[in-house]
Amino acid sequence: MDTYKAIVSKRDVRHYTDQPVEGEVLQRVLQAGRMAGSAKNSEANRLMLITDQAVQDALVEAGDFASWIGSAPLIIGFASPAPLLRLFDVGRQAQNMMVAGHAEGLASCPVTLQHADKARAAVGLPADWEMPMIITMGWPVADAPDSPLKRERVALEELVRHNTWS
Amino acid sequence: MDTYKAIVSKRDVRHYTDQPVEGEVLQRVLQAGRMAGSAKNSEANRLMLITDQAVQDALVEAGDFASWIGSAPLIIGFASPAPLLRLFDVGRQAQNMMVAGHAEGLASCPVTLQHADKARAAVGLPADWEMPMIITMGWPVADAPDSPLKRERVALEELVRHNTWS
Repeated sequence: MDTYKAIVSKRDVRHYTDQPVEGEVLQRVLQAGRMAGSAKNSEANRLMLITDQAVQDALVEAGDFASWIGSAPLIIGFASPAPLLRLFDVGRQAQNMMVAGHAEGLASCPVTLQHADKARAAVGLPADWEMPMIITMGWPVADAPDSPLKRERVALEELVRHNTWS
Repeated sequence: MDTYKAIVSKRDVRHYTDQPVEGEVLQRVLQAGRMAGSAKNSEANRLMLITDQAVQDALVEAGDFASWIGSAPLIIGFASPAPLLRLFDVGRQAQNMMVAGHAEGLASCPVTLQHADKARAAVGLPADWEMPMIITMGWPVADAPDSPLKRERVALEELVRHNTWS
């Protein structure tokens, strides 16, 4: 898929079929995450690929708005040593993976895990590591309902300012 | 350009020609930022397009490692109301714009602005807004030196763990 088309058509989608995410498609998604830039080339993040139902169920308890994630075919968690946690870099890496997945037909959605201790325990991270963000990923269902938060994006004229605020 | 190819070949590059970034190419970069997802569809970020030399010079003072940014043809700043600042979403938006730009031949690099007050003053943001991250963007020079931090990426086998840490 054309890069621009993939980027501007990617939506965050939470409704997936039961089909697993695997093989070459998964490899390309992971490679997209691997090649994301990071501050000072620190590459501090590690990617937790989570398909085990017990681990997914434990992650449900780590987020305030995560009740639905237990049925996702794949969860990818972004684990970082706490002193090197940079959410900007996590966002870059997640977007690479979600856009690369979208170009393959995969749907995805980020989820915040507000409860650091529960997230750490769910995947057995070392005490000084954190996993505040995950993405869910799967093949989209044909008849997914729209998000109740769906709306038009802010217009470019409102989004962009030139040189100074006013 | 193919989506996967654009994503995995994007490098953070700081050396640009004097040629401005404008016209349809700039519109596509901005549209790529506009279409990035955000938590609860909040779309809190605003994009500051900075080409004015005096503003760029003021931004140099807002970052600890920003001495080089004053000569970039374009700086794009991510301004957010402080209570809605989500660096994960800023990273998603920045990556969309940098990958879309890369597909057009543009080079780019993120820069952290550690000094919030100086960043705010440089672009005249309201008191409760912040702009902790910017990207620089321009057309790459042919003979740019490699970054002193350049290295191979961490191998996939080291990057990825399955279900639990150990």
